[in-house]
Amino acid sequence: MTRILLLGAGRSASSLIQYLLRYAPLEHWQVSIADVNPAHLAPVLATHSAYAQAISFDVAQVEQLDVLVPAADIVISMLPALFHPLVAQACVRYGRHLVTASYVSPEIQLMEADARAAGVALIMECGLDPGLDHMSAMRALSEIRQRGGVLTSFKSYCGGLMAPNSEGENPWKYKFTWNPRNVVLAGQSTAKYLENGHPRFIPYQQLFARTQVLTVPGYGEFEGYANRDSLSYRQPYGLESIPTILRGTLRRPGYCAAWHALVRLGLTDDTVHLGNSAAMTWQELIEAYLPVATSGSLPERVATYLGLQPQGLEMAMLTWLGLFTNRPLVLPDATPAQLLELLLTEKWQLAEGDHDMIVMQHLFDFTLNGQPHRRTSSLVVLGDDATHTAMAKTVGLPVGMVVRRLAQGKIAPRGVVIPTLPDIYEPILDELAADYNIHFEEHEFALD
Amino acid sequence: MTRILLLGAGRSASSLIQYLLRYAPLEHWQVSIADVNPAHLAPVLATHSAYAQAISFDVAQVEQLDVLVPAADIVISMLPALFHPLVAQACVRYGRHLVTASYVSPEIQLMEADARAAGVALIMECGLDPGLDHMSAMRALSEIRQRGGVLTSFKSYCGGLMAPNSEGENPWKYKFTWNPRNVVLAGQSTAKYLENGHPRFIPYQQLFARTQVLTVPGYGEFEGYANRDSLSYRQPYGLESIPTILRGTLRRPGYCAAWHALVRLGLTDDTVHLGNSAAMTWQELIEAYLPVATSGSLPERVATYLGLQPQGLEMAMLTWLGLFTNRPLVLPDATPAQLLELLLTEKWQLAEGDHDMIVMQHLFDFTLNGQPHRRTSSLVVLGDDATHTAMAKTVGLPVGMVVRRLAQGKIAPRGVVIPTLPDIYEPILDELAADYNIHFEEHEFALD
Repeated sequence: MTRILLLGAGRSASSLIQYLLRYAPLEHWQVSIADVNPAHLAPVLATHSAYAQAISFDVAQVEQLDVLVPAADIVISMLPALFHPLVAQACVRYGRHLVTASYVSPEIQLMEADARAAGVALIMECGLDPGLDHMSAMRALSEIRQRGGVLTSFKSYCGGLMAPNSEGENPWKYKFTWNPRNVVLAGQSTAKYLENGHPRFIPYQQLFARTQVLTVPGYGEFEGYANRDSLSYRQPYGLESIPTILRGTLRRPGYCAAWHALVRLGLTDDTVHLGNSAAMTWQELIEAYLPVATSGSLPERVATYLGLQPQGLEMAMLTWLGLFTNRPLVLPDATPAQLLELLLTEKWQLAEGDHDMIVMQHLFDFTLNGQPHRRTSSLVVLGDDATHTAMAKTVGLPVGMVVRRLAQGKIAPRGVVIPTLPDIYEPILDELAADYNIHFEEHEFALD
Repeated sequence: MTRILLLGAGRSASSLIQYLLRYAPLEHWQVSIADVNPAHLAPVLATHSAYAQAISFDVAQVEQLDVLVPAADIVISMLPALFHPLVAQACVRYGRHLVTASYVSPEIQLMEADARAAGVALIMECGLDPGLDHMSAMRALSEIRQRGGVLTSFKSYCGGLMAPNSEGENPWKYKFTWNPRNVVLAGQSTAKYLENGHPRFIPYQQLFARTQVLTVPGYGEFEGYANRDSLSYRQPYGLESIPTILRGTLRRPGYCAAWHALVRLGLTDDTVHLGNSAAMTWQELIEAYLPVATSGSLPERVATYLGLQPQGLEMAMLTWLGLFTNRPLVLPDATPAQLLELLLTEKWQLAEGDHDMIVMQHLFDFTLNGQPHRRTSSLVVLGDDATHTAMAKTVGLPVGMVVRRLAQGKIAPRGVVIPTLPDIYEPILDELAADYNIHFEEHEFALD
């Protein structure tokens, strides 16, 4: 019997829980699901009581980890990433394996030696992005290398979007399926990537103006903006000397130009508190950002200030958000970013029956027998319903599959591990495709 | 006898030390000057040994405060502002007064009740800005109010610049007389002020593009950009209902437009580390920020990218800095802001014989007998030499004068105090004018 402990059962854990419950009787697991609000798990676990139980767990009470972790063989943490070092320390202390969907933080990296010495695997980055991105890219890279191809460019994009039938009237074609605050604050540093052997830097105030258009077969066009640090992917992917590498985030066309307008207005700043903001309206806030009151309506003056077409798509998107209305800001002494997040949380709210969509695309350029080639690997996953969203499936299922392989003794490495090894990613990519129809569509063609 | 302890004797303390040594024999003071490097004080103190001594003091060894503070009656801290809460706590603990030239931080504000209970005055903001700005503005405001004037607008600017004869060939007409890092990171939030009763916000990426031109009699034109939070001056100045209030920083004309170009390029970002920066040159760094390599020289492409005249002043100023040379960046894994600071520290270095200059200007608009008026108060202070700079004089002398009045028992308030009370500022402004020729030139005229 393998004892599996899941810490954190929020919305994004739904498909992971379903996976764990599916395999618990088959694999002889005892599954404990620890959450701050275990009551909501009762209906889910009702028919699985022989091998699954809910536990009340408050992450603020760290000492609970000293009870729960030693009572498990494998720990999964779906808690916010900042808690992972605490959980990982407990896992090392009690000699238990850990699986998460979060990035290897510097604190986790420092536990490498201790984890190895304790015979513990801290398997990080097992979700969608990071996770499925590593697995799918490594499979394609490995296949290209085996044929003798030499990589010259690797670009990779991912986005959590809405299914085409759920984009509705929303001109942004975007709703929140992930942490709204992270979306509002996205990219607030300088993005770094490599192009033809030269480093490229994009400061925040230019980030959403320098996008690239991508096409995904059957789903039309998307635009990608560069992620913060594309360079860090060279080492784990074995691409130390590749001339071009870029990682980016996908949105539907138009989103980035309109977001760029919000950035330029100053509405994404999270460092200033605006004092008496509760007494202001949205149009007063926007007015306060304009240089000097000239003639014309507020939207006309905003368009002039930003150099946008008054009747263009960007202005229509800003208007749709309600920026030019007398809607109150509500929050006292808030930052512009907090005010924007509150507004967007309502405007970009999922409606009954909405389906989300995950899109990922890798573009590999390589030389094979002296001939340049391009390969694209594209993934589209649609949400089943409001619970089993595309986000929950693509984050949770790979985590569950790593746990199953670990429980079967089929994952040998110890220490800090990410799923860039074929022994880990091959069976998982196969299982995702065979059992869940989550698979990449591959296209390859010679260039020139 | 009054025992005076000065903590920190860096460059900006030179004129303060001179003031303390001048009055020590006359006022029966024993002056202790505590510094991490007391040896450099020996020549200064040589002829003053009867009433002054140097002490070795390392701020990292906090327990020294428990020896030094109780042995003094008045403590002056010229340490970096972050150490002031520690020093203030020791002063409250041992019932000693404290004088500093730094802002009242939230931590200091929290000591208000304890300081009062201990009969201790924590007199903050006694330097130039904050300090002399409060004193001079309050005197003028008080005078206008006494005549029955009603304030409608208060704008106030200050800058630490170079004397006209020391601007040299430097097209920026600026050199470092203060913390370089603070200059490079200046304004990296949203500036807030009030204009005609309406809040105005300027995001960082617009800050240096929205300047105001000022004229100082005898010294020509300056340009001012808005400081972070002008609104916080309303309460201490008794201007709670004023329609227009703005505080700003002065530079010579041209500086702000060229700095705006550096901001837009991305060179003031301090949040990203650029990896292999030690292997790059300045022209490679600038190249990395440009969208795509088109034809033309690097400066031509930068001018096109930023929408600047290729032969204009801004491009000449960027070129003068050496941005388009193959000079190495030197620092490994540095932020753009760190690289820029290193470059500017050399380019904006004071030369032998250079004199600095402090400029402050207040603009008061008020209604008197139904007639709108404007009053300008302008201060220009030139440095005597490389030791007794205008910065050292205007920061240190008001501090010394507050200490002298405090030692004479002429400052009554206890708790957290700033020099907005006439009993404090009147004699100090008089002494600065009479003994040091530091005085404001006043102009007043009816508008319309």
